[in-house]
Amino acid sequence: MFIDRLIEKIKSKNNPSVIGLDPRPEFIPMHIRKKAYAEYGENLLGAARSMAIFNKKIIDAVWDIVPAVKLQLACYEAFGIEGLKAYSETVEYARKKGLVVIADAKRNDIGSTAEAYSKAYLGKVTIEGNSLSGGFDADAVTVNPYLGFDGIKPFIDDCKKYDKGIFILVKTSNKSSGQIQDLILKDGRRLYEEIARLVDQWGEELTGTFGYSSVCAVVGATYPAQAEILRKIMKRAYILVPGYGAQGGTANDAACSFCPDGLGAVVNASRSIMCAWKSNLWSDRFDEFSFNEAARAEAIRMRDDINLAVKRRFSGS
Amino acid sequence: MFIDRLIEKIKSKNNPSVIGLDPRPEFIPMHIRKKAYAEYGENLLGAARSMAIFNKKIIDAVWDIVPAVKLQLACYEAFGIEGLKAYSETVEYARKKGLVVIADAKRNDIGSTAEAYSKAYLGKVTIEGNSLSGGFDADAVTVNPYLGFDGIKPFIDDCKKYDKGIFILVKTSNKSSGQIQDLILKDGRRLYEEIARLVDQWGEELTGTFGYSSVCAVVGATYPAQAEILRKIMKRAYILVPGYGAQGGTANDAACSFCPDGLGAVVNASRSIMCAWKSNLWSDRFDEFSFNEAARAEAIRMRDDINLAVKRRFSGS
Repeated sequence: MFIDRLIEKIKSKNNPSVIGLDPRPEFIPMHIRKKAYAEYGENLLGAARSMAIFNKKIIDAVWDIVPAVKLQLACYEAFGIEGLKAYSETVEYARKKGLVVIADAKRNDIGSTAEAYSKAYLGKVTIEGNSLSGGFDADAVTVNPYLGFDGIKPFIDDCKKYDKGIFILVKTSNKSSGQIQDLILKDGRRLYEEIARLVDQWGEELTGTFGYSSVCAVVGATYPAQAEILRKIMKRAYILVPGYGAQGGTANDAACSFCPDGLGAVVNASRSIMCAWKSNLWSDRFDEFSFNEAARAEAIRMRDDINLAVKRRFSGS
Repeated sequence: MFIDRLIEKIKSKNNPSVIGLDPRPEFIPMHIRKKAYAEYGENLLGAARSMAIFNKKIIDAVWDIVPAVKLQLACYEAFGIEGLKAYSETVEYARKKGLVVIADAKRNDIGSTAEAYSKAYLGKVTIEGNSLSGGFDADAVTVNPYLGFDGIKPFIDDCKKYDKGIFILVKTSNKSSGQIQDLILKDGRRLYEEIARLVDQWGEELTGTFGYSSVCAVVGATYPAQAEILRKIMKRAYILVPGYGAQGGTANDAACSFCPDGLGAVVNASRSIMCAWKSNLWSDRFDEFSFNEAARAEAIRMRDDINLAVKRRFSGS
């Protein structure tokens, strides 16, 4: 089961964090870009190649200490077919290194179309009776709930069939997330509370040995008060926590999505890892040629930061 | 401005409908599939090639009578890189034939990521100071509103900059759309009413010469009573109406999204056009070898069906 695999990796590495591989040209050290442009041209191909090379070096730097990576599809899609080749190459490389791969695609549509998206990321397409892995196969994918259960069910069916997971948006990390997600319903609850209730219910049949479900949730570190409420509503949903680091969420904020067993959440950081070498914290020790060492140092700092915050939260100290 | 271009095409062709190019292997006549598999293999490539060939034949059959086509990204993504090449090839072909192209991608994410999606479908990516069209450039893209305005703004900015359009999900055509979209808010309104209010407000600065905005909405034909309410809330949003035909919406249902000026909406049909040759309506006259003629006959029938319903709605007869 997806959720058990993820939790076992989190436990064995003692690290409840995920590295976001969301490269943008400006995040990639100039020497890598220059080399790729010289070889492939200053075009979509050259940019995409620099992304793939950069990603692999980040993976090489952190694979032994982190359980999972998350790839933001938008960053690859912007560079078209070449960008998506870089996505696929990165997924394959991360899997070879034993990492759980989350496709951050935030896909959703009506039933029959959600089925096609699910085939792309989790399931298989059928060609004249033969099943083949879909185009962008990952271990889990992020999903938008706005269309209700028929937009979710095909993903859940593939989770059952192929041991995959989904992360459904509940309360996102961005500034304007409240505009819709915080709307107050007739009964006084917020919309995000109702979504959380549904997510937990939808995940019932996919509960694993640790008591958590492969139907997971997304709750931003930037909203710790809401995270506390949501953690109580969702008994079994594992929570993916974006918004730590560059977006302003702290380890204490992220800790609000964890449970007393020390499990219940994985925290994502993208920019703060990819661009660690440029940050106030690390720019004294590292430069663009040691960006990978900076990424590792920051990944370790983040791991320890979160583990400490989670420990403190539940020890009462 | 996108919306003016769309309306001018609708007027000149006297046709407020959009053909959905959402091919699935089972929709494609066997002789096309067989030929593609023989040439390219019974794999993702062969399946994707059969989709591109099929799409072009549908476009050849209808380009002179319809204003626009809509491509459902999920159908292409399921077939990976090869599928997306078929998408791009179809977009290019449709544009050469003078059709407006809507990418039905239902994308959304937090601000900086929404920006990357917008670059992929509407805007341009910057590579070392040079702007290049993103990977999957279309005239408009469908967008999910769940993340609030920061997930929408980057698309609106690109609409302004590059004369593009967006269609924001308000009330979707699927059975379970009410589970979230129909939730009753504290003030007694439904969630979809609040989304509609926001969509209309977001589109203010992009209002064109006909009084409609390039910030458009999606309202399913399967919910005519809600469409009447939403048409009143949204003074300027053009409405894309899915759910006509195979999903059960009638021309009278779709007419609820139109305005008294006879404009205000475009109705999409996918399966009923692509698979017209197999339908009860046309299977006597056409077979898999004349699927394109069947698609044209059905596109004409649909055009006349909708035009008549719209005329009746506003003439009171």
